Amino acid sequence: MFLKNVWYIAAWSEEVPVTGIFKRKLLGEDVVFFRQTDGNIVGMADYCPHRYLPLSLGRHEGDNIRCMYHGLVFDGKGKCVEAPFSDTPPKKVCAKVYPTVEQDRFVWIWMGDDSKADPDLIPSLKVMNDKSWHYIPRHLVYKCHVQLLMDNLLDASHLAFVHASTIGGGDYHAKQIPELETFDWGVRVTKKFENVPLPPFVKKVARFEGNTDRWQIFDWHIDGYQLILNSGQAPTGTGALEGNYVDEAFHFHSVQTLTPESENSTHYFFMFAHSFTDEQDRIAKEIDAQFAIVLEEDKVILEAQQAKLEEYPNHKMAGIKSDLAVSKARMLLEERMQKEAGENED
Amino acid sequence: MFLKNVWYIAAWSEEVPVTGIFKRKLLGEDVVFFRQTDGNIVGMADYCPHRYLPLSLGRHEGDNIRCMYHGLVFDGKGKCVEAPFSDTPPKKVCAKVYPTVEQDRFVWIWMGDDSKADPDLIPSLKVMNDKSWHYIPRHLVYKCHVQLLMDNLLDASHLAFVHASTIGGGDYHAKQIPELETFDWGVRVTKKFENVPLPPFVKKVARFEGNTDRWQIFDWHIDGYQLILNSGQAPTGTGALEGNYVDEAFHFHSVQTLTPESENSTHYFFMFAHSFTDEQDRIAKEIDAQFAIVLEEDKVILEAQQAKLEEYPNHKMAGIKSDLAVSKARMLLEERMQKEAGENED
Amino acid sequence: MFLKNVWYIAAWSEEVPVTGIFKRKLLGEDVVFFRQTDGNIVGMADYCPHRYLPLSLGRHEGDNIRCMYHGLVFDGKGKCVEAPFSDTPPKKVCAKVYPTVEQDRFVWIWMGDDSKADPDLIPSLKVMNDKSWHYIPRHLVYKCHVQLLMDNLLDASHLAFVHASTIGGGDYHAKQIPELETFDWGVRVTKKFENVPLPPFVKKVARFEGNTDRWQIFDWHIDGYQLILNSGQAPTGTGALEGNYVDEAFHFHSVQTLTPESENSTHYFFMFAHSFTDEQDRIAKEIDAQFAIVLEEDKVILEAQQAKLEEYPNHKMAGIKSDLAVSKARMLLEERMQKEAGENED
Repeated sequence: MFLKNVWYIAAWSEEVPVTGIFKRKLLGEDVVFFRQTDGNIVGMADYCPHRYLPLSLGRHEGDNIRCMYHGLVFDGKGKCVEAPFSDTPPKKVCAKVYPTVEQDRFVWIWMGDDSKADPDLIPSLKVMNDKSWHYIPRHLVYKCHVQLLMDNLLDASHLAFVHASTIGGGDYHAKQIPELETFDWGVRVTKKFENVPLPPFVKKVARFEGNTDRWQIFDWHIDGYQLILNSGQAPTGTGALEGNYVDEAFHFHSVQTLTPESENSTHYFFMFAHSFTDEQDRIAKEIDAQFAIVLEEDKVILEAQQAKLEEYPNHKMAGIKSDLAVSKARMLLEERMQKEAGENED
Repeated sequence: MFLKNVWYIAAWSEEVPVTGIFKRKLLGEDVVFFRQTDGNIVGMADYCPHRYLPLSLGRHEGDNIRCMYHGLVFDGKGKCVEAPFSDTPPKKVCAKVYPTVEQDRFVWIWMGDDSKADPDLIPSLKVMNDKSWHYIPRHLVYKCHVQLLMDNLLDASHLAFVHASTIGGGDYHAKQIPELETFDWGVRVTKKFENVPLPPFVKKVARFEGNTDRWQIFDWHIDGYQLILNSGQAPTGTGALEGNYVDEAFHFHSVQTLTPESENSTHYFFMFAHSFTDEQDRIAKEIDAQFAIVLEEDKVILEAQQAKLEEYPNHKMAGIKSDLAVSKARMLLEERMQKEAGENED
Repeated sequence: MFLKNVWYIAAWSEEVPVTGIFKRKLLGEDVVFFRQTDGNIVGMADYCPHRYLPLSLGRHEGDNIRCMYHGLVFDGKGKCVEAPFSDTPPKKVCAKVYPTVEQDRFVWIWMGDDSKADPDLIPSLKVMNDKSWHYIPRHLVYKCHVQLLMDNLLDASHLAFVHASTIGGGDYHAKQIPELETFDWGVRVTKKFENVPLPPFVKKVARFEGNTDRWQIFDWHIDGYQLILNSGQAPTGTGALEGNYVDEAFHFHSVQTLTPESENSTHYFFMFAHSFTDEQDRIAKEIDAQFAIVLEEDKVILEAQQAKLEEYPNHKMAGIKSDLAVSKARMLLEERMQKEAGENED
């Protein structure tokens, strides 16, 4: 179960080539993407409606795609525009096309009710294109339900245990119950720590010594399971928790979004941007290498959790006090899914 | 779903050794084959009725087979003829035997209703034993339902796309809607092309230059999903399409038969015979090597198609004009299966 | 289906370390074992009740285990005794603990109804700790239902076929129908052979030449699927079958117990003890190496049988005269399972 009537991120822009076909499984279905001659991206279910050969085995021909079994050609609307055996291609043989939009360095796709696919609903992620923020785009697949990754991102208390030797660095993550605010669009979870030790990984790139003031402000958007994170570290007592950043401070903007691949696997699109003006490239790469390790730490946990939950399909998880944000977000999501189910009945 | 009351090809004759046991999965069931001392082949379900140890782990002993768990011995009728602990073997413990006949270099098996297993129903495939026709026996397993391979063989229009660089060689295969005739035993599909380019693979072995007159006459027999193909190529205008073959002409007889291995895999027995008197062996080997590539091209398509159809179990394939022969053959087959289902109810 | 209200062997004592966590799947469920500071072993279902992270990814901390996702700590009764975010750990969040006892070099576990888990029901296996008997502990997993391995152990007639070249050595194993006695606790199967050839493997370590008097007395205990075997070989006519053992005689005590891993796999705990006073170590190792081969011979048979039975879920095995002991033991087991099912309904 996941939301259907929502714009999901299907790919980083650069994953869809100018020539050729890009394939990805999304919400349980293989989708092929190709660019028309004007650069516009078409997203199409990965099968020819005639004999169900995957179109990913087909041929990209300008604005169209050709099935390489019997040669039918489909345009960007899914219409059959060429059939070798006839001058009049069969009108009823149509490929399934999904609304697809390229925006903010992402390819967005709408796999729910077509009539509701309004491009204006796509959230604006300005930081993606802001030249003063530097990042390396990442994409991973976790073999777990989207909900488990969402839970993980919303509850940073796990930094104390899962990421103890990387971005954790103390049990303060687990001891503090975060501040929680609820909005139309989702929840905001705020954690601020004064005068705590630098985590092991930050120490390696830090431009200051001694303890840190640390903040993590997570904005969780129900739409597209998106997390917008404002976080950072600064020398203790230099005012960062009130928004004053000294030169040595680290300030990050992160966009992390989840797209279900299937009921038990999830695409994780991840970027972690900084605005350092010196040594940008070197530090961006170092942070990226660090996150490869951090994300792997989560992967081990989440995939083990998924496997275990599959062994106990009738068990219910026990709730604890620190689940506050997770529980609220799950509730909002549940409301949205029920609303969507109701609309589908109309 | 496939036909049950029909003689299927289980193996090439030479696959069943004089001594020892040969195992193959057919219609979803493992079957063991062994030769009795007179050469007669026995086909038996691959389990001992006592404790279900596979008989393929047993021992061939003359006219019989011994289970190597507790030592029961079964004869060619499935009767228990020896039990170590008693002089009177248990009468009720019987192995399951399938009617099996060796004919025309093939081992034929009947896995339906025993009482209908009339050896006279086995079709005569004279070319198999005709010394003037030369071929190399081939056997492949495709991971697709038998129906998909049958569709493929009946619609040569795919040569234009799937086999473009091997035995295709032009879009003329896809442009021509073939002539279709219907018979009691199945359908005949005839394609004739005048003055077309030689396909890339034929060029390599051809004894003439320039364009070709090309013919393909497919006789599709419902029984045993058999295809008897008469095909060839000859220098343009030398009368081959009317049955006059000049010396340089290529004339082929091919027998291709399908036996379901399971609901989603199929045995493909294949031979492609020529009657060249010079350099027979060299050319037979070259053609065989070419077909290894051609059959692999089909395998990729068919297995991708099977996987995709399994993802969409409730979808229906869209029909197009060039499906004519496929549709007719599917209809005849459907009639036979319904007739068979009706008989089973009696 | 298998017995639940019974003490099963979970592991050899030495498999559970002093520090750290040992994991094993038993009766379909992963269980973690760890030792408390007093050496006592705790057996716990392998999941944290909060988010179902496997506790096998957790950390052993003295008398307790810590889940390494959000840091909850559970004691040997499954009670949550520490939660990072609060001074009062959540009372309702409990891990599932199984009664576990260490006795006679084995770790015993009770996975049925807790209220019936009486440690006095654990059978005494004195030979395990008798210093005059020497053995090497072995553990294997067979990919078959526990019943198939039980059948195998109860019917030694298969030595004539499965173990012909190792511990068989003649068709006398299959020819003799054994003596069968029935008790409250199970069945005793007795086989005695006078003046038969030494089996190939015994020949290699034997301290006598010529033929042998051979005995095998199997005590099959329903509880825990345990087999206690008294067996041996002695020079013909020296009185071994009446209990007089000359110095050259071989006398063995074997304990072999089965614990279901799942519906189609079984743990096999195996020891084969001798009391030779000379060259103990060398002979124990040689016998152990021989049994590695013998047990592999059974594994091939049992796993092939399991796979075949899964192909024919609706077939019934045919009975033969030599199944006597197997049939009786199956009947006793069936009675116990029905009794257990009745108790569960109360």
